[in-house]
Amino acid sequence: MPTSRVEAFSDGVFAVAITLLVLDLRVPITSKPLITALADEWPAFAGFLISFIVIGVVWVNHHGVFHRVANVDRPLLFLNLFLLMAVVLIPFATALMAQYVAHGGAQAEVAAAMFNGAQVLMALGFQGCTFWLDGHPQLLAGHAQPTTVAQRLRFGSGLLVYLLCIPLSFVSPIAALGLDGVVAAFYITDQLSSRRTAG
Amino acid sequence: MPTSRVEAFSDGVFAVAITLLVLDLRVPITSKPLITALADEWPAFAGFLISFIVIGVVWVNHHGVFHRVANVDRPLLFLNLFLLMAVVLIPFATALMAQYVAHGGAQAEVAAAMFNGAQVLMALGFQGCTFWLDGHPQLLAGHAQPTTVAQRLRFGSGLLVYLLCIPLSFVSPIAALGLDGVVAAFYITDQLSSRRTAG
Amino acid sequence: MPTSRVEAFSDGVFAVAITLLVLDLRVPITSKPLITALADEWPAFAGFLISFIVIGVVWVNHHGVFHRVANVDRPLLFLNLFLLMAVVLIPFATALMAQYVAHGGAQAEVAAAMFNGAQVLMALGFQGCTFWLDGHPQLLAGHAQPTTVAQRLRFGSGLLVYLLCIPLSFVSPIAALGLDGVVAAFYITDQLSSRRTAG
Amino acid sequence: MPTSRVEAFSDGVFAVAITLLVLDLRVPITSKPLITALADEWPAFAGFLISFIVIGVVWVNHHGVFHRVANVDRPLLFLNLFLLMAVVLIPFATALMAQYVAHGGAQAEVAAAMFNGAQVLMALGFQGCTFWLDGHPQLLAGHAQPTTVAQRLRFGSGLLVYLLCIPLSFVSPIAALGLDGVVAAFYITDQLSSRRTAG
Repeated sequence: MPTSRVEAFSDGVFAVAITLLVLDLRVPITSKPLITALADEWPAFAGFLISFIVIGVVWVNHHGVFHRVANVDRPLLFLNLFLLMAVVLIPFATALMAQYVAHGGAQAEVAAAMFNGAQVLMALGFQGCTFWLDGHPQLLAGHAQPTTVAQRLRFGSGLLVYLLCIPLSFVSPIAALGLDGVVAAFYITDQLSSRRTAG
Repeated sequence: MPTSRVEAFSDGVFAVAITLLVLDLRVPITSKPLITALADEWPAFAGFLISFIVIGVVWVNHHGVFHRVANVDRPLLFLNLFLLMAVVLIPFATALMAQYVAHGGAQAEVAAAMFNGAQVLMALGFQGCTFWLDGHPQLLAGHAQPTTVAQRLRFGSGLLVYLLCIPLSFVSPIAALGLDGVVAAFYITDQLSSRRTAG
Repeated sequence: MPTSRVEAFSDGVFAVAITLLVLDLRVPITSKPLITALADEWPAFAGFLISFIVIGVVWVNHHGVFHRVANVDRPLLFLNLFLLMAVVLIPFATALMAQYVAHGGAQAEVAAAMFNGAQVLMALGFQGCTFWLDGHPQLLAGHAQPTTVAQRLRFGSGLLVYLLCIPLSFVSPIAALGLDGVVAAFYITDQLSSRRTAG
Repeated sequence: MPTSRVEAFSDGVFAVAITLLVLDLRVPITSKPLITALADEWPAFAGFLISFIVIGVVWVNHHGVFHRVANVDRPLLFLNLFLLMAVVLIPFATALMAQYVAHGGAQAEVAAAMFNGAQVLMALGFQGCTFWLDGHPQLLAGHAQPTTVAQRLRFGSGLLVYLLCIPLSFVSPIAALGLDGVVAAFYITDQLSSRRTAG
């Protein structure tokens, strides 16, 4: 089966998920000064920004993985569906985190752990697709290079960090989220530099 | 008419329907422990998971049916629209089921019957498309094999089971939903094994 | 400019609009018998069904119009945007109609008039695209036939009936909506039969 | 990397964002005359119309920019994501403006400033993509002309006007929004006339 419909369907899910984020931004109905009312909503704005970046980066990565694929089989379709389920959960996990991380205490710990749980699902989805493709090179496009050890380490370390962040959330939610930010920044700059190396 | 726009439109509907599921997961606004508040929402999480799997499997099947098609005519467009209407109803039917199945009594019976009613509509949509294609082989792609008796039995038995589940819902909602689960598991493993046979 | 992105964008709008309809179906939170609570929601179900059919038929027609087009220019892009705006308004107009048509009196009259107003916008959008294409045959694909007088009458009479339905709504909302149903049925059967003639 | 998936993803975001606008139109549940209740909702209708036009014009421009592109690299992907984030914010900014601009005083000033802030983000996104493409002509399609000074002035003056409108919002919100309308009208007619010159 060709990849066109998988890509179209996946792009659709990414596009809807990233656009639905705006539904969490609500026009305040208030008699307070509007600027104060908007400032009070800062967790919603922070959540919007984080989710947008996370889903955006995942979409760029998805683009990268499927760019190497020429044909899909049914297990790959289901692995991709699992990955998309994790993507769809990100707005919920981020809204939860944005709502409760400032509360401190057990509420913040649970919220940070849930957010990292969603990240683990997503990393597992990517690992699943990559492993399946490594074992079935006949699905790859002619121009695709086999995955290098460096690439596997890079993807694998992301999963490892997200996994570690779940127990860390119960020690320090802020530290766990800070580590998430480092991983995201690493993926973005890494992608930009790998482009430069290729060029 | 070529199939490209039908596939693009259908993929769009599938993508939106599967992503809208996340709107049923609400961030609890609560002073209870967050973990308890989330646990109280288990029917919403169960509904999300079931709907995601059902729509995902239907999308894979839709992919399979239209992969064999080279041209669409107007009746096929309308049959496909009917199928998509059933897909769009799945999130509603699942949310209804998730909300009321734990209540027991008449509420659970009606909810399970409605859920199976939506499944019947979906199976009818697939049957309609398949019958039309069988009667109009000029619409099929050159590489497409005619439908085998085994495939017809497989699709037809799904419709039959869902139909039987409607009266069964009024006897035992749990038994009806269990049978739905068996059918879903059958379709997933069947698809995976048919791939292996082909390979 | 090629038509591919216009079609992709339009299909996206149609797919989102037709799928958002499900948001008007709400799971009743009730202590009444569930079957009664669902029956009380019949205007929502009727609205869902009507909107789905209307948007579905418009999508099939849009498919038909743009199938003849090879290139788009900027005025056609804006005419298409106008048509899409009318499509996006249909769920709102139908929900309004479904909510108020059973009330009788002035509420029903205004609701039916608004519903027909949305239909007029949509018919105007189609007329605009068709007129522009008639005046700019260089945009048409090689295989496209010029619009026949019969086709123009068919499209034009739809616009005329919808226009007449606005004042008629204030005399008898039921008669106006009945006439809408006749036009929809005419378009569906007409499309099916024109296919048969062509084949 | 080819542009197909970037365009598909972007079209998806545009399509969802423009269709979600209808969620701000609510069926009034009222015992007042329906026509009065709808008239009371005029800011929602005005917001719908303005957002639809703004997103529609941005989509036409996006179409124009990426029509010249043959390949995308990662920085362009991220610049495009930034532009899409601004697009996704437009419904929120417009709803805010529609809600508060009639209030007068500080509420109207803040709302108009936020609306123009969203426009600035969008103009920055376009500038970013155009600058990157100017510096990397190897990404352009063979048929693409280099950007002319006139085009740069046209795009750049839009950004400048939106920037000026932020402080202007605190002097006169109505004047700032009027100037926004002039820019939008300029882009639409400019696009139509540039087409005529080309033809």
